[in-house]
Amino acid sequence: MKKVAVIMGSDSDWPVVSGAVKTLKSLDVPVVARVISAHRTPQDAAAFASNAASEGFGCIIAAAGKAAHLAGVLAAYTILPVIGLPIKSSTMDGLDSLLSMVQMPSGVPVATVAIGGAENAALLAAQILAVEDEELARRLRAHKQAMADAVREKDKKLQSEVDSL
Amino acid sequence: MKKVAVIMGSDSDWPVVSGAVKTLKSLDVPVVARVISAHRTPQDAAAFASNAASEGFGCIIAAAGKAAHLAGVLAAYTILPVIGLPIKSSTMDGLDSLLSMVQMPSGVPVATVAIGGAENAALLAAQILAVEDEELARRLRAHKQAMADAVREKDKKLQSEVDSL
Amino acid sequence: MKKVAVIMGSDSDWPVVSGAVKTLKSLDVPVVARVISAHRTPQDAAAFASNAASEGFGCIIAAAGKAAHLAGVLAAYTILPVIGLPIKSSTMDGLDSLLSMVQMPSGVPVATVAIGGAENAALLAAQILAVEDEELARRLRAHKQAMADAVREKDKKLQSEVDSL
Amino acid sequence: MKKVAVIMGSDSDWPVVSGAVKTLKSLDVPVVARVISAHRTPQDAAAFASNAASEGFGCIIAAAGKAAHLAGVLAAYTILPVIGLPIKSSTMDGLDSLLSMVQMPSGVPVATVAIGGAENAALLAAQILAVEDEELARRLRAHKQAMADAVREKDKKLQSEVDSL
Amino acid sequence: MKKVAVIMGSDSDWPVVSGAVKTLKSLDVPVVARVISAHRTPQDAAAFASNAASEGFGCIIAAAGKAAHLAGVLAAYTILPVIGLPIKSSTMDGLDSLLSMVQMPSGVPVATVAIGGAENAALLAAQILAVEDEELARRLRAHKQAMADAVREKDKKLQSEVDSL
Amino acid sequence: MKKVAVIMGSDSDWPVVSGAVKTLKSLDVPVVARVISAHRTPQDAAAFASNAASEGFGCIIAAAGKAAHLAGVLAAYTILPVIGLPIKSSTMDGLDSLLSMVQMPSGVPVATVAIGGAENAALLAAQILAVEDEELARRLRAHKQAMADAVREKDKKLQSEVDSL
Amino acid sequence: MKKVAVIMGSDSDWPVVSGAVKTLKSLDVPVVARVISAHRTPQDAAAFASNAASEGFGCIIAAAGKAAHLAGVLAAYTILPVIGLPIKSSTMDGLDSLLSMVQMPSGVPVATVAIGGAENAALLAAQILAVEDEELARRLRAHKQAMADAVREKDKKLQSEVDSL
Amino acid sequence: MKKVAVIMGSDSDWPVVSGAVKTLKSLDVPVVARVISAHRTPQDAAAFASNAASEGFGCIIAAAGKAAHLAGVLAAYTILPVIGLPIKSSTMDGLDSLLSMVQMPSGVPVATVAIGGAENAALLAAQILAVEDEELARRLRAHKQAMADAVREKDKKLQSEVDSL
Repeated sequence: MKKVAVIMGSDSDWPVVSGAVKTLKSLDVPVVARVISAHRTPQDAAAFASNAASEGFGCIIAAAGKAAHLAGVLAAYTILPVIGLPIKSSTMDGLDSLLSMVQMPSGVPVATVAIGGAENAALLAAQILAVEDEELARRLRAHKQAMADAVREKDKKLQSEVDSL
Repeated sequence: MKKVAVIMGSDSDWPVVSGAVKTLKSLDVPVVARVISAHRTPQDAAAFASNAASEGFGCIIAAAGKAAHLAGVLAAYTILPVIGLPIKSSTMDGLDSLLSMVQMPSGVPVATVAIGGAENAALLAAQILAVEDEELARRLRAHKQAMADAVREKDKKLQSEVDSL
Repeated sequence: MKKVAVIMGSDSDWPVVSGAVKTLKSLDVPVVARVISAHRTPQDAAAFASNAASEGFGCIIAAAGKAAHLAGVLAAYTILPVIGLPIKSSTMDGLDSLLSMVQMPSGVPVATVAIGGAENAALLAAQILAVEDEELARRLRAHKQAMADAVREKDKKLQSEVDSL
Repeated sequence: MKKVAVIMGSDSDWPVVSGAVKTLKSLDVPVVARVISAHRTPQDAAAFASNAASEGFGCIIAAAGKAAHLAGVLAAYTILPVIGLPIKSSTMDGLDSLLSMVQMPSGVPVATVAIGGAENAALLAAQILAVEDEELARRLRAHKQAMADAVREKDKKLQSEVDSL
Repeated sequence: MKKVAVIMGSDSDWPVVSGAVKTLKSLDVPVVARVISAHRTPQDAAAFASNAASEGFGCIIAAAGKAAHLAGVLAAYTILPVIGLPIKSSTMDGLDSLLSMVQMPSGVPVATVAIGGAENAALLAAQILAVEDEELARRLRAHKQAMADAVREKDKKLQSEVDSL
Repeated sequence: MKKVAVIMGSDSDWPVVSGAVKTLKSLDVPVVARVISAHRTPQDAAAFASNAASEGFGCIIAAAGKAAHLAGVLAAYTILPVIGLPIKSSTMDGLDSLLSMVQMPSGVPVATVAIGGAENAALLAAQILAVEDEELARRLRAHKQAMADAVREKDKKLQSEVDSL
Repeated sequence: MKKVAVIMGSDSDWPVVSGAVKTLKSLDVPVVARVISAHRTPQDAAAFASNAASEGFGCIIAAAGKAAHLAGVLAAYTILPVIGLPIKSSTMDGLDSLLSMVQMPSGVPVATVAIGGAENAALLAAQILAVEDEELARRLRAHKQAMADAVREKDKKLQSEVDSL
Repeated sequence: MKKVAVIMGSDSDWPVVSGAVKTLKSLDVPVVARVISAHRTPQDAAAFASNAASEGFGCIIAAAGKAAHLAGVLAAYTILPVIGLPIKSSTMDGLDSLLSMVQMPSGVPVATVAIGGAENAALLAAQILAVEDEELARRLRAHKQAMADAVREKDKKLQSEVDSL
């Protein structure tokens, strides 16, 4: 089974990004997490992306804040799908990192998820690997069913709160 | 080889969306294009997404403008990767469709590309299918090389314009 | 008298949404509150909206955050008026949910109120039911008068604070 | 049957607003259209809203651009449902009128539709009147069905364009 | 000497608005502060503005949040200069109230100051009254000089902090 | 009678700004129009503002686009009321000039009107001068009445268009 | 004298970027213009920036649109000052490229100028080189004086237009 | 060696701005920090900028919030490079100060860095001085290398956290 790489531009992103790693582990998807900066260690970013396919990765998640170039820089060096996870920093409410990731020019796409959407980045990576992995697809369908069950459970629990108003 | 579905919420999106279909055809990726509205034909959207995996689709591109729910609605019914292609309408410069697509809540991701980024939506779909298709991966690498060559060609051509200033 | 349905996409919306339920109860409008997710339990959303009119509902309030598709998804399956209540989540200050609700394409309107405007969602629902219910209209006029009285009372109280500056 | 009032802040809004009047006429909903400005003829606005219920109106659509106070000003004087239709003017892409309408403070709701969403404002007004008018509800359901049929027709027509790429 | 009216849409605006009242008092400008809501007590707003000139007011400051119609509503009924003071509420960071105040259509201006700019609203009111009041103008020039002196004093104090880094 | 200065940062602003000059002339308010740039001729801006009061000006209108510092720079050198008229340039839809004008820090207010609101800038200037000029106040009240009459005239004319739909 | 490099991400940026080249030539600053894409030719970008200092460049101007990573990518490989020139593309009015350039994380600055501000990018480059080049500084002071003279000339010419209103 | 001036519009900016002073000191770049307000002490700002070059400054950093005119006002009086450092204030998340700084009209550039990007403002100033100072360039290259080393160290440390999830 191919691995998912979770790259973050700074270790300060870890509290958010760890949610992606946890979700991938819970789905039994092999995952490698790294701190690689598009701006401070650009050679490492280029080298990682250039070799990712041959090293057994099937998908890359790139998390970064502010002018979030990491996902685009990695995508420039590989044809693996690159998932962009925008991180909210201290200003601009994440809009800067969202636009820096999603508005990629023609030729080099980044599959962008919601600001801070670590769980969704992980699920998307798993969905990509599941296109040709029926066993993983089964686990994803079970996860989807579990989510639905949880919503219905919460719906039931809500009724007592409604009555007590 | 698995097919890519290109779903648009309105036939008025076709001038933009056709770029995605062309790109997929140029990469020899089988593609089906449909007009299905999340709001006007919601049952059709639910049915299409529910059956997409079993009908041989490996990835869905969903293009829509304004409050662009189409990608999220399709993603609710399938674990196939769903790519969101925001379309700019007459107001808000596409920001409404971008946010409506990318800001999906936890559990149901949409892989969003740039506003109007039809070619990138297609390339992303091909990259996803290429994770387990070395022949398609080869075509994508060739496409990447051709893009680089084109940039270098333009760089050369620019020099005469620079000199003539 | 017809009922109002208050649907929220997640039970985490309840602290805001409970304000709508309270306001409806204070106006003696029958209300049912539910947790139904457009993305996690889409079949439940479709079923609820399809049957809402025949089950005695006259109006639906849909509360959701981020890419808030719930109101549009419900509106796709019913001709009952659907009121959209955008919820502010951890990023984008509610702008994402506002635009996802209000910018509906032609044919399927959502009556959107302010971000977090739970009381107004409830009052709007009551106003809709009061179009043909003179008794409820009377209660709404009394509520409007009480609001005016409260403002005038606060105006009086302010004067001592002004003098003490 | 109760009437719908369509109030616009300036006759320059008519090219957009006329779409609402046409839609209401096509649904056989009685409609009165007026130019009344919240800022230039505030007394007329106050008088119209104060008397609207007793003059047989069941719902008011208020269309305005820029700092669009019209809907809120009318809503201050009536408990009839007021639908806000934001108009895009020469700057700010309609965001100013959208926020001026939708962000109403607690106590006085405005049911806001999309920027320039004249058809939806009319459909929403009809849906409100249809809560207690089964015949109008029937026409709205037929309109909904016709929209679905039109989408399916366009889907069929698209296939030849797809094939010709 | 003419009075300044400071009108706020809600007593919850008082913590910000009190800064305007304090500044006016410190400049010996007579000031009246009131809670009058454009939406909850619209008749009071209309009456106040209609009579303001004849009751000795020379300028009106109107403070409001969210869809801040108060300044525009008052301006509709008077030719006195109306100063708009946008208040930040719980969402949208004050942008909604800023646009609702400043983007007034042609014919009815509102002199808008910064979001939360209570002191500036007061200074602007004083500047307006000082156009024909040389004594007040003298006090404003003294205030301007005092501000400059304070900046220079802070500049001197900063040097020790710079040296200690 | 005191004069109004209309300062623009660039002669390219004249097509918009001329509307302010025309409105002031129509109200018989003496007006002087100048091109003075806060960035290209900063000494001229400082000199003009420093001397404006003693040269008989009662109010200054400052029109500028992009990072519109002109109004703030003039206000720094005078206690005359300075009205900011934001001009829309080729990007950002005027938001940059609006925020650059209106968000002035404490101590130095700018009375900001709508983006491109030249007529309102002129009316506000006239309203300021009219605080102590009953004859000008009379002309402004007549102008307000004429606007109301014009709206009512347009309302009448609209009815035939409504009927012909 | 050190050279200025003007790098653009696409030859479609040339109509804007050529303004920077012209300005530099008019100041007798040696300039080299290139098309190098951060995403399509990332190796070329890395190589160019890595060698720029040793090849006699003193400053780099990087122009790009959408998710404009070019300036940041170049800055990652050099300690030369990198000036970011955001280009407006078909959506988002240039805000995406502005934020992608200016919001650089700590450690790797980009000196960002206005959206489409090609002349200013060139002037800033010249100002940087002029810090240690008194002759170039003299030319920049002359250019500044010429701008002031041009504004004063336009001010004079305006007076006849004002009189003719 | 030329000095860097760090000018802030208010001493309340010091907690952010001190980061720039510290960074410059750590690079052995001589630095002078001042509180000078574009609006409260405009004469001081004009005088400082006019004399900065002759007093041995090679670059000016200007930090300000809200309608941040300081950088533009200084740049109007000098041809030294002026670096704009936007400060986030209590509303608008720093967007107002960013746009007020970066959107300078043609002729007078401001080299703008990220909102709150004090360290980057300092590094950019050092990079400018290093164009003709090989010793400072050496220190900047060492700083760049140290940043890369720190990222790689953090990458190593992360692995134990990843394993423990």
